[in-house]
Amino acid sequence: GIFMIDKNRLEAAFGAMRNFSDVGEGVTRLAFSDADWQAREFIKGKMSEAGLKVREDAFGNIFGRRAGGNDSLPAVALGSHIDSVANGGNYDGAAGVICALEVINAMNEQGFVNEHPVEMIVFMAEESSRFGLATIGSKAMAGLVSIETIKQLKDKTGESLYDVLKCRGLEPNDIASAACTENYKTFLELHIEQGKALEENKKSIGVVTAIAAPTRLKVWLYGQAGHSGATPMGMRQDALCAASEIILLVENTALAAAKSCTGTVGMMQVRPNALSVIPGEVELGIDLRSIYADEKARVALLVRTAIEYVAQKRGVRADITMLADDSPVQIHEVMVNFLSAVCEHEHVSYMKMPSGAGHDAMNMARICPAGMLFIPCKNGVSHHKDEYAQIDDIVTGARVLYRAVCELSKKV
Amino acid sequence: GIFMIDKNRLEAAFGAMRNFSDVGEGVTRLAFSDADWQAREFIKGKMSEAGLKVREDAFGNIFGRRAGGNDSLPAVALGSHIDSVANGGNYDGAAGVICALEVINAMNEQGFVNEHPVEMIVFMAEESSRFGLATIGSKAMAGLVSIETIKQLKDKTGESLYDVLKCRGLEPNDIASAACTENYKTFLELHIEQGKALEENKKSIGVVTAIAAPTRLKVWLYGQAGHSGATPMGMRQDALCAASEIILLVENTALAAAKSCTGTVGMMQVRPNALSVIPGEVELGIDLRSIYADEKARVALLVRTAIEYVAQKRGVRADITMLADDSPVQIHEVMVNFLSAVCEHEHVSYMKMPSGAGHDAMNMARICPAGMLFIPCKNGVSHHKDEYAQIDDIVTGARVLYRAVCELSKKV
Repeated sequence: GIFMIDKNRLEAAFGAMRNFSDVGEGVTRLAFSDADWQAREFIKGKMSEAGLKVREDAFGNIFGRRAGGNDSLPAVALGSHIDSVANGGNYDGAAGVICALEVINAMNEQGFVNEHPVEMIVFMAEESSRFGLATIGSKAMAGLVSIETIKQLKDKTGESLYDVLKCRGLEPNDIASAACTENYKTFLELHIEQGKALEENKKSIGVVTAIAAPTRLKVWLYGQAGHSGATPMGMRQDALCAASEIILLVENTALAAAKSCTGTVGMMQVRPNALSVIPGEVELGIDLRSIYADEKARVALLVRTAIEYVAQKRGVRADITMLADDSPVQIHEVMVNFLSAVCEHEHVSYMKMPSGAGHDAMNMARICPAGMLFIPCKNGVSHHKDEYAQIDDIVTGARVLYRAVCELSKKV
Repeated sequence: GIFMIDKNRLEAAFGAMRNFSDVGEGVTRLAFSDADWQAREFIKGKMSEAGLKVREDAFGNIFGRRAGGNDSLPAVALGSHIDSVANGGNYDGAAGVICALEVINAMNEQGFVNEHPVEMIVFMAEESSRFGLATIGSKAMAGLVSIETIKQLKDKTGESLYDVLKCRGLEPNDIASAACTENYKTFLELHIEQGKALEENKKSIGVVTAIAAPTRLKVWLYGQAGHSGATPMGMRQDALCAASEIILLVENTALAAAKSCTGTVGMMQVRPNALSVIPGEVELGIDLRSIYADEKARVALLVRTAIEYVAQKRGVRADITMLADDSPVQIHEVMVNFLSAVCEHEHVSYMKMPSGAGHDAMNMARICPAGMLFIPCKNGVSHHKDEYAQIDDIVTGARVLYRAVCELSKKV
């Protein structure tokens, strides 16, 4: 029946989550912040209320277990994250966690008996906003995070991820233990699309076929500061002019890529940043994404070459550091066809589509067969205070997720 | 004689001034800051010690008068400013003030009797670093600052120049009274070159022939923020890509100008400034300078047209505000020849040269015949912690300034 998903309970959960935020526009719930920790306690409470057996790993990923009729069978996992970017929205990540919780609650109310255990997962630190690295929690589960990385990663205030974990009573020294040993049957993640494809095609669900993954470069350009009036144009080593050329080359390289790829400079600092001073230093953050690993590697190489070319031409020094180089994931055809069939069975309009954004499902795909469901978000806006998903679309997404989890965990 | 200028006294003054600074690299003495106020009290004390009769105007410009044999004759004025940019040096402005003080002290010690009164001036708020407008003190003396402007100008913290003036016990409501009514015979300003011409040509003094003046634009670009992975390249309104095109067009327009002109984007803010978000907003500060008013106006028009072209092409909104549009000044040939003759008489190597930077002399030229003397600064570096002028070059500059003031103020 259509009413197993409780719209009011969903709305109440989104209402509660919105309040776990630092001050300012939209939702600011950076990983390991007080706001994140409060949201986490709230969700853990709700998981316990729903009868899940809750545990955490060394990194802070949360697991809530619903025992199966045959509890030795591989578990069906579902979940997402609750941390956010600065001044982001209330749906990126949170929608997948709240819908996973709703699926458990619906199972309880429907008296559904799952043969396979079902496990809800809340991943720590999905957003890169605080430490410059994304999906750290699920990376740790895939065994991709070393103690060295944890010590090296620092936030804007200079605090290391290691110290932050210690502060929160977690176990950075024991990070290897977070690598998943569970034999999952499958992992499903519901997420807002963060693009306009569903809206423009008037579809309720996107069945994800592949997940693009980021390659990220930090670039420091060192030119020569000088007086804006007293330094002739021909005698300059302007770090901002060099940065501008690089930004346009990143854009052009991505536009010209043979297979679909994005290239974005989203982060930039200019020093000393005064009207009358030629910029002596510029720091750039470059984000490249594609569902095609070969194409992304080719674009990254072209971008590096472009940076070196511009730097040499302008007499500016360029230091390049690779912050991340994640592998894109192809979702298995069997999973895509299964989720499509669920949509058809539920009479929900859907389309198959790639995900431009990275997700925890990308790392979970290394552990077990993974699948993703997108729901529409208004105007495709995400990572912004105006991020918004309609409650009816969320209800539809939760319903498809419920049906999929039931199908996968039922007694055959 | 060569020893009328006291090298030790000059060095002591520079040593004292260096300490009037906020924390951080180099000298930070923003206009009206505590550091600026302490430096001001120090200089006022030294002016009184040197026997000058000290007064201030409504804006805080300081005047120190040495009576003339015939005190009704027009005064010979000299001076510069003591405020600095953030993390700047100890010479820009301060050199002219300290040398002016040294000239008065030397007059005292030499027992020089001036027929014309001599007036030392310390201008308030020469640098644009705090309020975005340069040479505000001398502009006020030229009657170019209205009460409306004083109320509109705000610093980064949102504090208005009006409130800052009130706070310092000055008289913003009476700003019209700062317009100069004194009948000056001439005004002389010694300043570091802030370029490499003297160093490269191995000259001790630059006799300034013209002063470039800035035209300054603030540009706000409003695009559309979005997820860096989920927004296809062809569907973007990236404010930073638009800004990058504009920055390169500013550079190219200045490079291609028929008569020498500089174009600099020194200031830039990106929002929200995160690796995974397409920049939705960018703020740019553009600084155009030339000693040719017609050429600067032409370049400013081309830059405005380029901004509008880029904005339209990229579907980004551009708001442009003109922060300043000062007129360049030609120094009168009689003054250039007089200062050249003083250099020759003193056996000091010199060259005639334009000033790319704006100076208070630019506004004083509206009040009386004005002249400027440049001294070399190391590697042409200024507005930077590495700004440096050798004491021997400063002594030479003070000596030429002394001789010029004596010549202009003596009984004929």
